[in-house]
Amino acid sequence: MTKSLSTVSEKSGLPPGALIHVGDVLETVTRISVIDYSTEHFEEQTIQSIDEILKYKDSNTVTWVIIEGLTNVDVVERIGTMFDIHQLVLEDIMNTHQRPKFEEYDDYLYIVLKCLSTENDQFAVTYEQISLLVLKNFVFVFKEKKDDLFHPIQKRIRSKRDRLRKFGTDYLTYTILDIIVDQNFIVIDSLDDAINSVEDTLLASEPTKDTLNTIQRLKREVANIRKHVSPVRELIAGMLCSESELIDEKIHIYLKDVSDHAIRIIESIESYRDILIGLLDIYISIVGNKMNEIMKVLTIFASIFIPLTFLAGIYGMNFEYMPELKWKWAYPALWSVFITISVVLLIYFKRKKWL
Amino acid sequence: MTKSLSTVSEKSGLPPGALIHVGDVLETVTRISVIDYSTEHFEEQTIQSIDEILKYKDSNTVTWVIIEGLTNVDVVERIGTMFDIHQLVLEDIMNTHQRPKFEEYDDYLYIVLKCLSTENDQFAVTYEQISLLVLKNFVFVFKEKKDDLFHPIQKRIRSKRDRLRKFGTDYLTYTILDIIVDQNFIVIDSLDDAINSVEDTLLASEPTKDTLNTIQRLKREVANIRKHVSPVRELIAGMLCSESELIDEKIHIYLKDVSDHAIRIIESIESYRDILIGLLDIYISIVGNKMNEIMKVLTIFASIFIPLTFLAGIYGMNFEYMPELKWKWAYPALWSVFITISVVLLIYFKRKKWL
Amino acid sequence: MTKSLSTVSEKSGLPPGALIHVGDVLETVTRISVIDYSTEHFEEQTIQSIDEILKYKDSNTVTWVIIEGLTNVDVVERIGTMFDIHQLVLEDIMNTHQRPKFEEYDDYLYIVLKCLSTENDQFAVTYEQISLLVLKNFVFVFKEKKDDLFHPIQKRIRSKRDRLRKFGTDYLTYTILDIIVDQNFIVIDSLDDAINSVEDTLLASEPTKDTLNTIQRLKREVANIRKHVSPVRELIAGMLCSESELIDEKIHIYLKDVSDHAIRIIESIESYRDILIGLLDIYISIVGNKMNEIMKVLTIFASIFIPLTFLAGIYGMNFEYMPELKWKWAYPALWSVFITISVVLLIYFKRKKWL
Amino acid sequence: MTKSLSTVSEKSGLPPGALIHVGDVLETVTRISVIDYSTEHFEEQTIQSIDEILKYKDSNTVTWVIIEGLTNVDVVERIGTMFDIHQLVLEDIMNTHQRPKFEEYDDYLYIVLKCLSTENDQFAVTYEQISLLVLKNFVFVFKEKKDDLFHPIQKRIRSKRDRLRKFGTDYLTYTILDIIVDQNFIVIDSLDDAINSVEDTLLASEPTKDTLNTIQRLKREVANIRKHVSPVRELIAGMLCSESELIDEKIHIYLKDVSDHAIRIIESIESYRDILIGLLDIYISIVGNKMNEIMKVLTIFASIFIPLTFLAGIYGMNFEYMPELKWKWAYPALWSVFITISVVLLIYFKRKKWL
Amino acid sequence: MTKSLSTVSEKSGLPPGALIHVGDVLETVTRISVIDYSTEHFEEQTIQSIDEILKYKDSNTVTWVIIEGLTNVDVVERIGTMFDIHQLVLEDIMNTHQRPKFEEYDDYLYIVLKCLSTENDQFAVTYEQISLLVLKNFVFVFKEKKDDLFHPIQKRIRSKRDRLRKFGTDYLTYTILDIIVDQNFIVIDSLDDAINSVEDTLLASEPTKDTLNTIQRLKREVANIRKHVSPVRELIAGMLCSESELIDEKIHIYLKDVSDHAIRIIESIESYRDILIGLLDIYISIVGNKMNEIMKVLTIFASIFIPLTFLAGIYGMNFEYMPELKWKWAYPALWSVFITISVVLLIYFKRKKWL
Ligand SMILES: [Mg+2]
Ligand SMILES: [Mg+2]
Ligand SMILES: [Mg+2]
Ligand SMILES: [Mg+2]
Ligand SMILES: [Mg+2]
Ligand SMILES: [Mg+2]
Ligand SMILES: [Mg+2]
Ligand SMILES: [Mg+2]
Ligand SMILES: [Mg+2]
Ligand SMILES: [Mg+2]
Ligand SMILES: [Mg+2]
Ligand SMILES: [Mg+2]
Ligand SMILES: [Mg+2]
Ligand SMILES: [Mg+2]
Ligand SMILES: [Mg+2]
Ligand SMILES: [Mg+2]
Ligand SMILES: [Mg+2]
Ligand SMILES: [Mg+2]
Ligand SMILES: [Mg+2]
Ligand SMILES: [Mg+2]
Ligand SMILES: [Mg+2]
Ligand SMILES: [Mg+2]
Ligand SMILES: [Mg+2]
Ligand SMILES: [Mg+2]
Ligand SMILES: [Mg+2]
Ligand SMILES: [Mg+2]
Ligand SMILES: [Mg+2]
Ligand SMILES: [Mg+2]
Ligand SMILES: [Mg+2]
Ligand SMILES: [Mg+2]
Ligand SMILES: [Mg+2]
Repeated sequence: MTKSLSTVSEKSGLPPGALIHVGDVLETVTRISVIDYSTEHFEEQTIQSIDEILKYKDSNTVTWVIIEGLTNVDVVERIGTMFDIHQLVLEDIMNTHQRPKFEEYDDYLYIVLKCLSTENDQFAVTYEQISLLVLKNFVFVFKEKKDDLFHPIQKRIRSKRDRLRKFGTDYLTYTILDIIVDQNFIVIDSLDDAINSVEDTLLASEPTKDTLNTIQRLKREVANIRKHVSPVRELIAGMLCSESELIDEKIHIYLKDVSDHAIRIIESIESYRDILIGLLDIYISIVGNKMNEIMKVLTIFASIFIPLTFLAGIYGMNFEYMPELKWKWAYPALWSVFITISVVLLIYFKRKKWL
Repeated sequence: MTKSLSTVSEKSGLPPGALIHVGDVLETVTRISVIDYSTEHFEEQTIQSIDEILKYKDSNTVTWVIIEGLTNVDVVERIGTMFDIHQLVLEDIMNTHQRPKFEEYDDYLYIVLKCLSTENDQFAVTYEQISLLVLKNFVFVFKEKKDDLFHPIQKRIRSKRDRLRKFGTDYLTYTILDIIVDQNFIVIDSLDDAINSVEDTLLASEPTKDTLNTIQRLKREVANIRKHVSPVRELIAGMLCSESELIDEKIHIYLKDVSDHAIRIIESIESYRDILIGLLDIYISIVGNKMNEIMKVLTIFASIFIPLTFLAGIYGMNFEYMPELKWKWAYPALWSVFITISVVLLIYFKRKKWL
Repeated sequence: MTKSLSTVSEKSGLPPGALIHVGDVLETVTRISVIDYSTEHFEEQTIQSIDEILKYKDSNTVTWVIIEGLTNVDVVERIGTMFDIHQLVLEDIMNTHQRPKFEEYDDYLYIVLKCLSTENDQFAVTYEQISLLVLKNFVFVFKEKKDDLFHPIQKRIRSKRDRLRKFGTDYLTYTILDIIVDQNFIVIDSLDDAINSVEDTLLASEPTKDTLNTIQRLKREVANIRKHVSPVRELIAGMLCSESELIDEKIHIYLKDVSDHAIRIIESIESYRDILIGLLDIYISIVGNKMNEIMKVLTIFASIFIPLTFLAGIYGMNFEYMPELKWKWAYPALWSVFITISVVLLIYFKRKKWL
Repeated sequence: MTKSLSTVSEKSGLPPGALIHVGDVLETVTRISVIDYSTEHFEEQTIQSIDEILKYKDSNTVTWVIIEGLTNVDVVERIGTMFDIHQLVLEDIMNTHQRPKFEEYDDYLYIVLKCLSTENDQFAVTYEQISLLVLKNFVFVFKEKKDDLFHPIQKRIRSKRDRLRKFGTDYLTYTILDIIVDQNFIVIDSLDDAINSVEDTLLASEPTKDTLNTIQRLKREVANIRKHVSPVRELIAGMLCSESELIDEKIHIYLKDVSDHAIRIIESIESYRDILIGLLDIYISIVGNKMNEIMKVLTIFASIFIPLTFLAGIYGMNFEYMPELKWKWAYPALWSVFITISVVLLIYFKRKKWL
Repeated sequence: MTKSLSTVSEKSGLPPGALIHVGDVLETVTRISVIDYSTEHFEEQTIQSIDEILKYKDSNTVTWVIIEGLTNVDVVERIGTMFDIHQLVLEDIMNTHQRPKFEEYDDYLYIVLKCLSTENDQFAVTYEQISLLVLKNFVFVFKEKKDDLFHPIQKRIRSKRDRLRKFGTDYLTYTILDIIVDQNFIVIDSLDDAINSVEDTLLASEPTKDTLNTIQRLKREVANIRKHVSPVRELIAGMLCSESELIDEKIHIYLKDVSDHAIRIIESIESYRDILIGLLDIYISIVGNKMNEIMKVLTIFASIFIPLTFLAGIYGMNFEYMPELKWKWAYPALWSVFITISVVLLIYFKRKKWL
């Protein structure tokens, strides 16, 4: 049975642990890849039925199962039965609105986090939820999308000399986390470009409503990234504190390295957030600046020509007794008055630095 | 005796534990429903007098009593006497201004929190206070309103195979908390819609005082939601730390699941709060933008026509000696001056990107 | 000797523990009331000399002494000598600029906090400092003002059946704290009214400098309330942690109830603070809105009539060769030009939604 | 050797503990005062050479040495040698850019903090660094300036009955800290005056660039005060936690009193900071308000006279066929049109509350 | 092999510990300096191959190796092999995007932080990453640039009497950290100058878009400095908590001194951040102020001359029956009306303080 709900609120009222996919459907068909390896041994295949992994259950090799596409409830349910996974964990795997977290059970670990990616043109981040079930000899990875995210790891496993082949499921888990966290650097680079571009538009040319729109959109993106990335710090801290036998102490130094990266990413996000908040104040400043420029033009034109027009208006009056009208030099004299007033006002505005 | 006070400040000075309903009256008649169940047994009824539950007191079944409507002080007082509940707990049940909290007593647990709901059209959140008294074999739920919030749970209990039938009062408590916390997702969805709609109005069309009004209203709503929802995190943390025998350790994983949901809701609320604060700055920016547009129109009209009017004024003067007035081509020549000035200024404004 | 200093900075340099009243003088005459009670016994009187309480010193009854008015140094000094109170505590009682706090000594507890009240018309909070000295059989309360704050408690003590009569000084202390903390709800209600009224003025009618003045005044009031109320949380936490024999464990649940109230008040204050900060941005938005409205009126008038005036100016020129002047239909034709221009511009402004 | 560097950055690269005065030179000549006292004994003098204190080294009296003026490196170095003070402590004494702190060594304590003062006219805070070296029988105080800050203490010591005479160096240390911390209340009072005066200017009369200047200056002053005062809280907390024998437990209650004062000062500073940030928004609001007022005047004048001028312009045209020109009542009729238009517009503006 | 990647995101997907230089290339050729010293012994040289340090491996002297320029992967890899350094540490040394941190391994310590410097003219901070590997008898320093940063230390080591010669690698480590942290004071001084200069421009003369540009640039610089400097506090706290035998307890007091300096720098950065945020509000205020000034000029000119022009327009009308036109004193009378109106309006504007 494969049904999907698009928002988490639709599920309200269902019994806890009722298995149903919640979230947008990114893949309709589920692909299951299996890699089985030990120091000496290597095997790689795509399987049709999840039951095909049963044969790896009793060997001492590391079996890495990648499930791409989450709409097939049966697969998840079958894994749950096979390895005695708690119903709530299965539910979390199927519900793609999880906050990143680490949970420790007697026989397995559950890790869930988000893999971020951006499209090239506009800065729009997409989030893929990735769940890891780590057992003694198995690592299950549940992804929403089919892609080549783990190809570098797969390539390394194929090489017999790679460190991956010498360690267990904990080191594989680290390698997976590392590659997911490192994706964020690409997103951060792309965010940096987007913000710089807004900043340039703002400070160099004329800011429009579009700029405003972009700032607001980036602010929301940053808020979202922050929400999905900052719990990763505490996720790894949880793994480091864990006393589960599934994480060897040798792995700690590797996890700390991932943690370092996560902290750097979170700090960058925080400072981008500050910068974006500041950009709105700059926008307001620039709008005010432009207003001043506009008003200066108006004021200069009006202040010079309004008095002159008044003067011209006076000598356009039709009074019978207006002696000036008959003076021979009145007209050129008035022109010199016009010019004098204009020059005086222009100097005045120049002094005020309005010109 | 059933009297109600509408604000908490009216109660100031009364002895502690003086039982009186404080808060708005949402139901005038109290309804009492009882569900009694065990693995094998199931019984469901609406009772008139609270004394009818006495018969369940000595059986090992789980008895769930739902009291809807809080104006009937007698019911609460009688339960207090029957099960030896502390006077201050009874007072808290009757006073609907409680902050969500968890309290542990020797023989029972007290939990109080808010159930949020929104009306469809405008985003206006209403808060219903729900109190839980959890005993070894009893769960009392005190609600302000009669509604079908718990129908999904009741339906599950009726099914003999449901997990609820196998667990005790602690699992029932979890199920109730879960359904209340999950209501918040609906509110959050609705808040998201409301904010998106404001944002669209703001960035697409002309923002009015109404938009401002809505932003301010949403800000206050978000402040209120935050006040009522964020203590839930610490409420559940308290339950997880509790060493009471009334909460079995098996239930912890379920409570953690509720906690996850609560944290996600709180984080969403926080980011909506940030967005709403930012919207005011955007409003100010857009108002400034519009001002610039208005001023450009004025400046262009005024700057072009004021000098021309002055020129026309000059040749409207009545001086006797104005040689131009007699020139044959003066009038068309002046027109070409008019046109030249206009064109020059239009090009100037075009260059400034005001057109 | 009774001298008072009005600001704390005047005291700088005096030896520590130099007893002198610091603060505004709210009462010039000191009133001392004594209530002595036990389960069976009750006695109530106003005394002239503090030495009259000596007779209660060796009985097992609870003696509650209320000192209203703090300018009489002798009373405080005498109590200090009688019960061996530390000089710094006496100093704190006399100096009404204390931050709320709880201090534990070998034989007594010292509690100091503020009782808030508001005048009806304008929201202006006044602060009265109340100090409590709690001993085994004595509770001393030092207040700045004579009022009926404690009348409800006094009334309860008179009733032989009231719980107060069965407990000791710790329960009386709780009752006093409860009544003081509950006063804050009245202040909060009144603050809520004041803020709503500002908000209404802001969003409905024309905001003036007065509105600004009120917002700023409310912000300072809220800052002050916060300063005086938020330490109460930590005060009660201190009492709950205390291992003094003067606070029985049975009283803890009552103190937690006061703490609940204090937390709710502090959270309300915090959210009012946020709202007030936001109101300034709304004020700025509304001022900007009004400016736009004013400028639209100006721009519409100017943009329509300035071109028309120019046209009229042209035909007011006195050139000899202006063929139009002689055309028969020139004048009505020009009128239709006037009307056409006006209509076109009006439609243009209508389209821009300026009308 | 006495050389001084004015900024700390000039010292970069020098070996740690290289003794040189860093900071502004407030006194060029160093004064050394010595007070030696016990319950029975009292002696007071100004000495020329620091070696004169050697004679007090073996007596059980308390010896208080006040060094005013820090340019004389030899004095500090000699004390360092005499009492085996760590080179880094001596360096800190000589460098007047220290953050307030408390350091505990085997045989002595080192305390450094700032003494604040303000000039009367303008609110400009000056900071004097005061270092204390507390030994078993010695207290060294290093000040930058010669003044009468400690006169009240000196006066008290002279009196044989004063508590100071009965206690050791720890109580003297408390007394010194108390007097330094209490200086802050004077600064706070003066800051309050300065802020109130800005607020009044802002809300009552016309705010100018000067007001802005003052707000910004006050903000920086508050930021500086905060930087120099807030570590005092943690300084005293450090003293209270210390297990050094140099601080008797009897002194704790006195130190808590200083701590209370420090906390009150820090809280005041925080709320002044909030108020100052808010003042800028008020400034912006008021500037907007004034703009509206100005624009109303312009709009009213322009909107009334521009249409009228147009009408007058029409009848100033020189068309041959303009029938109105010949009508007898045309001129008075036009006047009534002028008046009607003006009145209608004035009513319109009145209704809009622009008048 | 020497290849470099310019951004960290390009490395995503590489196996952990893959040695490659990530960051901008500041030096293409690597210089290796070695200083070997003990109380009695001193030796200083520049070596070509890192293998030349092998001879110091078994002596008890302190060997300080400074590697300037990070593009030569072989050097780092060779050191890693010689001293058995973890692959992830080597990776961090080569990747110049590290967050400052302290890591403790069994046989060595790893410290990485940033050295800040500014160019003179414009405030533009450059960051050089410096890594320290501290072993029992070796200190390796990896720098991006060749410069004379450590010359003062080198000079001190040459002197036989200097404290450095008596201590081990921990004291040398302290000396290096001290000199790096002290560089920040120079940057802070330079930042202070830059901010003061902006503030002066803002408050004294006319603020332009350039000022805005500078404010924004400084804000980003401060955000960056903060990101790179604030972890230093926790770095040193980590060293103080460390129980490694590589840090003698005698060194703690020196590290605390560095910590003091770091805290002072961080606090300065925080307050500069606040000031910069405030400057934008001041900018907006000043732009508003200028607008008011401009509008006053316009309003005064327009309000005076527009009514006068209207009056002149009236008497420019060509009605046959306009009695005033024939009055003898009409023209001078009108002039006195003109003057009266102007004077009245000027007084009005004077009263409003617009003049
Ligand atoms: Mg659920
Ligand atoms: Mg989340
Ligand atoms: Mg990584
Ligand atoms: Mg979104
Ligand atoms: Mg946001
Ligand atoms: Mg690393
Ligand atoms: Mg702002
Ligand atoms: Mg009460
Ligand atoms: Mg609440
Ligand atoms: Mg749930
Ligand atoms: Mg509300
Ligand atoms: Mg879940
Ligand atoms: Mg704002
Ligand atoms: Mg004092
Ligand atoms: Mg005190
Ligand atoms: Mg306070
Ligand atoms: Mg209460
Ligand atoms: Mg305030
Ligand atoms: Mg006050
Ligand atoms: Mg209660
Ligand atoms: Mg603003
Ligand atoms: Mg140094
Ligand atoms: Mg400091
Ligand atoms: Mg004091
Ligand atoms: Mg300064
Ligand atoms: Mg602001
Ligand atoms: Mg990597
Ligand atoms: Mg960093
Ligand atoms: Mg240093
Ligand atoms: Mg940057
Ligand atoms: Mg130092």
